[in-house]
Amino acid sequence: MQYSSQTIESVIEALSSLPTIGRKTAQRLALHLLRRPQEEVARLANALLAMKDNVAYCSRCFNLTESDPCPVCMSPKRNQAIICVIEEPNDLMAIERSNEYFGQYHVLHGALNPLDNIGPDDLKIKELISRLDDSVEEVILAMNASVEGEVTTQYLTKILKTLGVKVSRIARGIPVGSDLEYADEATISRALQGRVEV
Amino acid sequence: MQYSSQTIESVIEALSSLPTIGRKTAQRLALHLLRRPQEEVARLANALLAMKDNVAYCSRCFNLTESDPCPVCMSPKRNQAIICVIEEPNDLMAIERSNEYFGQYHVLHGALNPLDNIGPDDLKIKELISRLDDSVEEVILAMNASVEGEVTTQYLTKILKTLGVKVSRIARGIPVGSDLEYADEATISRALQGRVEV
Repeated sequence: MQYSSQTIESVIEALSSLPTIGRKTAQRLALHLLRRPQEEVARLANALLAMKDNVAYCSRCFNLTESDPCPVCMSPKRNQAIICVIEEPNDLMAIERSNEYFGQYHVLHGALNPLDNIGPDDLKIKELISRLDDSVEEVILAMNASVEGEVTTQYLTKILKTLGVKVSRIARGIPVGSDLEYADEATISRALQGRVEV
Repeated sequence: MQYSSQTIESVIEALSSLPTIGRKTAQRLALHLLRRPQEEVARLANALLAMKDNVAYCSRCFNLTESDPCPVCMSPKRNQAIICVIEEPNDLMAIERSNEYFGQYHVLHGALNPLDNIGPDDLKIKELISRLDDSVEEVILAMNASVEGEVTTQYLTKILKTLGVKVSRIARGIPVGSDLEYADEATISRALQGRVEV
């Protein structure tokens, strides 16, 4: 395209390859960055490079970390007897934001998905099982509320129960702040099944 | 925050300072980039740096360019007798995408806005007037359909008419593909005023 310089074009192309960013948004972001001071753009560029260089997976819980084992695994404040199993590192960030959980994590890096040929060996399931020594009292399954998450929960429940560890799963129900009227049937049915005595 | 590494945190911070990108999206983008190959992330980072280093404003039309004058100003295929006045470089990209215009451009870099203290001297208006020699036959005003755009259009019309150049403005009306039912009153009233005989 004639109207754009080659370097702007390559920024737009690189940005629009990111999820949720289309070509128009990428163009807007590129022009925004052009208006910003050099230092600010350099900060973003260098942060990207540093992140790729320094961040790896924790060898214990497979969370993203710069030091191995990761700060969560190493923290003396966190309960070593509970492991919360999640699909992806961003699930960990979401749970940490709730300020409700102070145990360990284990990141599976995906969920079982026969259609995409993702089986138990593609996830960090063996690594989870090898962590289950006598000190671990409970495993909390916190998969996404999707078909894949459900399948993974059932698979792990079966395995973990034979190992004699207490297994729980996070509750499904009406989200806080949401109207019953707008909840779908599956959520309402799960909320009813999971009712608690008051 | 304990859960995130410092380098991931600085990428999230830099990304979420961009327009239309909130913290959650920034987090998602950062984790996406962590999963991509090193080359891809380096390509984005280097494109950003190269863009800031190489891109400047065309001294004639004030479009973004790597060479001065810009390719549009230099192109022998483009009509030198028509200048389309726009607010920002992305308006140029939008007009070029339509494949309907083959004249010159002039980027004002903003619109008149008394509330924000943006007056005629803050825009490239003097520079536009200095371009109006005998070879220029028409100036097309293509401001945004906002209050500021409207004020700028009226201001420029008054000045340009005293200079004896033909002044036109782009049509306001119902967008192509849109239902009359959903158009607002101002747009419908402008569409009626701007009706053309068939």
